[in-house]
Amino acid sequence: MKKYAVIVAGGSGKRMGNIIPKQFLLLKGKAVLWYTLDTFLRAYSDLKIILVLPAQHIQKGKAIIESFEVKDRINIITGGDTRFHSVQCGLKEIKEESVVFVHDAVRCLVSVPLIQRCYKNALEHGSAVPAVAATDSIRIVNHACHTVAKREDVRIIQTPQTFLSNIILPAFEQEYTDAFTDEATVVETYGTEIFLTEGEYDNIKITRPVDMMIAERILEERSALKQV
Amino acid sequence: MKKYAVIVAGGSGKRMGNIIPKQFLLLKGKAVLWYTLDTFLRAYSDLKIILVLPAQHIQKGKAIIESFEVKDRINIITGGDTRFHSVQCGLKEIKEESVVFVHDAVRCLVSVPLIQRCYKNALEHGSAVPAVAATDSIRIVNHACHTVAKREDVRIIQTPQTFLSNIILPAFEQEYTDAFTDEATVVETYGTEIFLTEGEYDNIKITRPVDMMIAERILEERSALKQV
Repeated sequence: MKKYAVIVAGGSGKRMGNIIPKQFLLLKGKAVLWYTLDTFLRAYSDLKIILVLPAQHIQKGKAIIESFEVKDRINIITGGDTRFHSVQCGLKEIKEESVVFVHDAVRCLVSVPLIQRCYKNALEHGSAVPAVAATDSIRIVNHACHTVAKREDVRIIQTPQTFLSNIILPAFEQEYTDAFTDEATVVETYGTEIFLTEGEYDNIKITRPVDMMIAERILEERSALKQV
Repeated sequence: MKKYAVIVAGGSGKRMGNIIPKQFLLLKGKAVLWYTLDTFLRAYSDLKIILVLPAQHIQKGKAIIESFEVKDRINIITGGDTRFHSVQCGLKEIKEESVVFVHDAVRCLVSVPLIQRCYKNALEHGSAVPAVAATDSIRIVNHACHTVAKREDVRIIQTPQTFLSNIILPAFEQEYTDAFTDEATVVETYGTEIFLTEGEYDNIKITRPVDMMIAERILEERSALKQV
């Protein structure tokens, strides 16, 4: 089936103590966003990318796209005010039945096997949302009440959140509410159950300065493995 | 009030791909455990430490204690089969009314201000369990059902979990169940509500190899701040 990856980068980068948004920070000489795009392009040769950026970063995004030989597979568009609205902008570009990946631009360590697993699971189950088990104790705090979640019951949700187009497209026609924290919640609110699939611990989101160092280390380990 | 820190290290270190348990790995030339002990000793000059180690590591622990001038403030004892039983062994050493900190030996970046905040909150509320907000989306998976937790409602629990002795000591006389994932759950099962206090993002648990690198980086930042 046709494949589209909507890659969203909305972050202002405030938590990095840096005026350069996280997706444009350099990791071993290449932008964080470059790694994300490269991995999706390698995952499937017929996959197309819809890159959604804030208006003021479109030029920076175009410069990164220029470095790819297959730049015609990447379409760059302007996002909205929230994550939901940015994804909505991206989804409007999809006019055919397909599998749709929605991915954080700053999860630049996503792997080809993870993308392929999400694709296969979405084909079978309608959706595939990668998740890993929590390693810490977690509590749910609500008003004055705390619920202890059993550690083995807690899943940390990642991206690419992957859906059949006929599931995600109508779900994103709903009116926005601030309960829409990710694509899975949008689809569930629309009434469709989602399917969780195994994520990867290395599939981190670049949020704090220390994450850049972790990412660099993981990239080094990967290139060492290739050389063996 | 009197102060006891029960510092537990039970980990076999399997996740580190290393036969040396995590608490004995070297960070800038000193054992992970050294940093943990040092910070508790500095937090309060009248604080006593009960260090609980597996039998086969008691000698290694003693060697680290020898490096402290105030080694008479640290008592080293042998732990049990589970975290609960190790903490129980440690608590048996406490014979007087006190504030009791229970801390993971491998959370070696715990800070003096965090320890002092836990102390003050435990005095006022009976307990203080440090927690930080989650930065990722979290789901609670139970049988076939997924609950989405609102991100602002999710707290990642840390240590030192801190209690008045008259709250934690009787709670640890209960019979063990595998629902006892930390000290807070033991106290709650006994029927006492716990108080959450603000934790620290840097207060990480050394679990995977990359955590050693993060810890080293945070220690470097701290020593740079001191030199300013």
